[in-house]
Amino acid sequence: MTSYTPPIQDLQFVLQDMLGVSACGITGFDDMDADTTAAILTEAGRLAAEVLAPLNQVGDAQGCRLENGIVYTPEGFKAAYDQLCEGGWTGLDMDPEYGGQGMPYVIHTAVGEMHCAANMALNMYSGLTHGAASAIYAHGTEDQKRTWLPNMISGAWGGTMNLTEPHCGTDLGLMRTKAEPQEDGSYSITGQKIFISAGEHDLTDNIVHLVLAKAPGGGAGTKGVSLFIVPKVLVNEDGSLGARNGVSVGSIEHKMGIHGNATCVMNYDGAKGWLLGELHRGMPAMFTMMNEARLGVGLQGYAQAALAHEQAAAYARDRLQGRAVTGAENPDGPADPLIVHPDIRRMLMDQKSFVEGARALTLWGALQLDRAHREGDAEAEALVSLLTPVIKGFLTDKGFEMAVAAQQVYGGHGYIEEWGMSQIVRDARIAMIYEGANGIQALDLVGRKLALNGGKQVMAFFELVGSACEDLRADERLAPLAEPLEGALKRLQAATGYFAERGMKAPNDALSGATDYMHLFGHVALGLMWAQMARASSAALDAGTGARDFHDAKIATARYYMARQLPATSMHLARIHAGGETIMALPAEAF
Amino acid sequence: MTSYTPPIQDLQFVLQDMLGVSACGITGFDDMDADTTAAILTEAGRLAAEVLAPLNQVGDAQGCRLENGIVYTPEGFKAAYDQLCEGGWTGLDMDPEYGGQGMPYVIHTAVGEMHCAANMALNMYSGLTHGAASAIYAHGTEDQKRTWLPNMISGAWGGTMNLTEPHCGTDLGLMRTKAEPQEDGSYSITGQKIFISAGEHDLTDNIVHLVLAKAPGGGAGTKGVSLFIVPKVLVNEDGSLGARNGVSVGSIEHKMGIHGNATCVMNYDGAKGWLLGELHRGMPAMFTMMNEARLGVGLQGYAQAALAHEQAAAYARDRLQGRAVTGAENPDGPADPLIVHPDIRRMLMDQKSFVEGARALTLWGALQLDRAHREGDAEAEALVSLLTPVIKGFLTDKGFEMAVAAQQVYGGHGYIEEWGMSQIVRDARIAMIYEGANGIQALDLVGRKLALNGGKQVMAFFELVGSACEDLRADERLAPLAEPLEGALKRLQAATGYFAERGMKAPNDALSGATDYMHLFGHVALGLMWAQMARASSAALDAGTGARDFHDAKIATARYYMARQLPATSMHLARIHAGGETIMALPAEAF
Repeated sequence: MTSYTPPIQDLQFVLQDMLGVSACGITGFDDMDADTTAAILTEAGRLAAEVLAPLNQVGDAQGCRLENGIVYTPEGFKAAYDQLCEGGWTGLDMDPEYGGQGMPYVIHTAVGEMHCAANMALNMYSGLTHGAASAIYAHGTEDQKRTWLPNMISGAWGGTMNLTEPHCGTDLGLMRTKAEPQEDGSYSITGQKIFISAGEHDLTDNIVHLVLAKAPGGGAGTKGVSLFIVPKVLVNEDGSLGARNGVSVGSIEHKMGIHGNATCVMNYDGAKGWLLGELHRGMPAMFTMMNEARLGVGLQGYAQAALAHEQAAAYARDRLQGRAVTGAENPDGPADPLIVHPDIRRMLMDQKSFVEGARALTLWGALQLDRAHREGDAEAEALVSLLTPVIKGFLTDKGFEMAVAAQQVYGGHGYIEEWGMSQIVRDARIAMIYEGANGIQALDLVGRKLALNGGKQVMAFFELVGSACEDLRADERLAPLAEPLEGALKRLQAATGYFAERGMKAPNDALSGATDYMHLFGHVALGLMWAQMARASSAALDAGTGARDFHDAKIATARYYMARQLPATSMHLARIHAGGETIMALPAEAF
Repeated sequence: MTSYTPPIQDLQFVLQDMLGVSACGITGFDDMDADTTAAILTEAGRLAAEVLAPLNQVGDAQGCRLENGIVYTPEGFKAAYDQLCEGGWTGLDMDPEYGGQGMPYVIHTAVGEMHCAANMALNMYSGLTHGAASAIYAHGTEDQKRTWLPNMISGAWGGTMNLTEPHCGTDLGLMRTKAEPQEDGSYSITGQKIFISAGEHDLTDNIVHLVLAKAPGGGAGTKGVSLFIVPKVLVNEDGSLGARNGVSVGSIEHKMGIHGNATCVMNYDGAKGWLLGELHRGMPAMFTMMNEARLGVGLQGYAQAALAHEQAAAYARDRLQGRAVTGAENPDGPADPLIVHPDIRRMLMDQKSFVEGARALTLWGALQLDRAHREGDAEAEALVSLLTPVIKGFLTDKGFEMAVAAQQVYGGHGYIEEWGMSQIVRDARIAMIYEGANGIQALDLVGRKLALNGGKQVMAFFELVGSACEDLRADERLAPLAEPLEGALKRLQAATGYFAERGMKAPNDALSGATDYMHLFGHVALGLMWAQMARASSAALDAGTGARDFHDAKIATARYYMARQLPATSMHLARIHAGGETIMALPAEAF
């Protein structure tokens, strides 16, 4: 019973009004004028609304099925997947040299939001392929690129990432999967991998697995790990498909959500694989993909919140229950719509202000990646590296929270599967876990990213926020927004100082506050986005361009975020300052 | 794969050390010495661990099944239910006059936590019967009590509450179910009710439905509503079962969780019913049950968090992943257990400090109900009335949040159904919705409960917290706990002043802050509980009684709650002070 309306107007606003993609001067952005991006988004949105969204609940209800080593995806998934391929959406931002469309990554990201919101489980199949293809593009030999990329970019073949094993998830140093060198230069891969999204399915003729494994001579821990290309079906010299490789699906998992995506146990039994990148340098090779992959998961978090918010707002406008405290607003009806009630609006405004802020932050991050990749802009690369754990961790924690809030608007109907809100909550839950659980994101932020460029990168971010505050003050319409954002920034700076001071001498104090710091950082980052969006809307109002209602609502929503979300920063700072004493006090058996 | 260990030591601590039930002097509490309550809890806990818990995942996986008008509960439910009945647990606190055991309600509540934690869906069948029986006990004629209560108290018959209709949940004034008076003094009931928990099942020979319906002459809105007893099977003069009544199950809902409990659409088609209580006074009759019913749902919230926390703590002690930042703690193993990591401990301490605080608050609330019912103590009744929306709303919001946090400790395994954490999250979710969605609890608190006794009741609560702070200061071991609790109390007082000022002149300002106020109140209430528990533990340490480790851990956990949970009160106050302007700013179509 869920529906999906592509947020074209808001995506256009972020791309054109706020980020100014058509005039940003990045190589390959010349054609990205408003008409062009609108045409791309509209077509992608049509596919999302008409093809992907109608299969969302089907996928949840049917799930995937394993029979005799073959995984069957839900009814309709194959036909919809084929439309994704035919439209060129699987290779939108890929290199034309290998069949891609060469579009900016930020456009791929905007399209990705819609496809993920409409059907997260289905969209993951091409999402995993995209990640694997990016790794081959970054680390493969020219021969490997020619062999694998064209069919992955066209969507004819799928791709996966194989990291986790039963006894090791976060701690990949415990890995047992082995790679034995063969005389022909290939490797023989043996071991078991779990939680492999899209590990086996009936959507493509071949699946290109990227597998982390230990080759001889690499030493202990993650240092000994290398990355291998292990196809499901071997490819002949002429490019045609040959024999099945020694890789098979052991079972598929019964999960809380994303039922339409097959999460597989994969068994490698002397499978033929080829080294991708350098020997014993598999971890760094995976990590070069990490910013993109984690940004993609952050996107899932807010995209599911966006879907949930659309449903909840429609329900609140439609469902009649109770009367407005200030007098009936629907006097001829038996009751007023839910949306007259302040507590319902509070939930909807939380969702709206989060979703629009998160959309801006994710697209802003994607644009930094475009700057990094297309312009070799090291500053942009460092900025997005700093923000990546925030985008992944904060947006998925909050995305789930907002999906739960949207479900709450439905009252009892929110708990009934037919209404679709339960699925959104169940689907959104995974984004907090995979691609590095959110606690790991927080540790990455505190333990690694604060030290980027000797700590200068975080200072550069503070300057960005500080100058946004000055810009707000200079605009009469927006001046009241400056103070709450400045206050939040000061708290972030204070917390950063605490970590700088404690990091080495009392590491448990620092690590105890890591998650609170990630949330504090996330609120300031969304505050920055709201400042930038409010400025874009204020400018549009001054110029008399665009829809006045839209820009008025944008500025009102910015006010909401500053007034009612930024106060969380005080809580997070107080918790950080509490340190680790009470966290480390109990012996393990007392929990 | 979940297990359940009854928290006998902690329940005994709350009942005996903190609440002092054996010496509290309430009528009928004379026998409640430590040995007796330990014996009761141990036996109830054995049933929970050995009989109910093993069926928890079975119930989730199988769900209920409707065939030809009969609802089949999951395998094993009937046998387990019969053991609940045979042990006398269904009537533990009921009047011996009608077959009950006459135990204190607070003991029934402590037992209820264990039975709910072990198997929430199964425990709901007797929980609904308990609620219906309480309503008949409070409002029935002597004849009605003799007819219905003995079989309900023994568990031979079930009971339900029928309020919701498809078009009305919260707003019962929209009700359409009709009651036509008959010549024999009975009523003919016609209409449809939805979301009826335990509405039909195979556990009992009869089900006694309590149904809200409109009888002629009552006028519009909820004023015209009356309450009726409508049995599934009519009862003959001699007490034997007669013909089927005109009530049937239309369908059962497919829900996010509590799959083992049948949530039914009930069709009343000229069913025979008898007025319970006064004509057109059905709403007040339902509301006299509300404190108990809502306390029972608050209990579900923290009981599921308790179950989740037990699993997460065990997993964190067992699962090896990574190394402690301060040096290996399991140097002979391949990695350290998860529990060495501060961010894992943060999640576990959040859960532990919440669960133990919530357990204390719920049992404290139950004891006030005992005082009210057994001693006619109006002060206790008003105190628990004030706290009821907090117990229901705060404990279920936080209980769900803590279940999600416990799931997060498992990483990817938390998302896989076999591990059981997904079920706990899905089951816990309903408690935020039913028995009055949590937004309604917040409105009840702000709109009704603050005005109790002309506002004096909330002042009395503040005094209670204030004197607890003084007691903390007077104990050297606990003095540092006083300041954070005093700060939280001041914020609660400031917020209360805001509502008093705005309530009438700007009601949207007040209603916009209702949920934040409920959470602010909840944190102060748990802070009060932690103050009382810390004092009990400090006294035990001084006296050298009890287990030193247990009491040391209790005080350390109190410190944690004060340091890391009470800072949320600043955030809630700031949000409350932000008022309603940004919440009411947007037109409905702009959401």
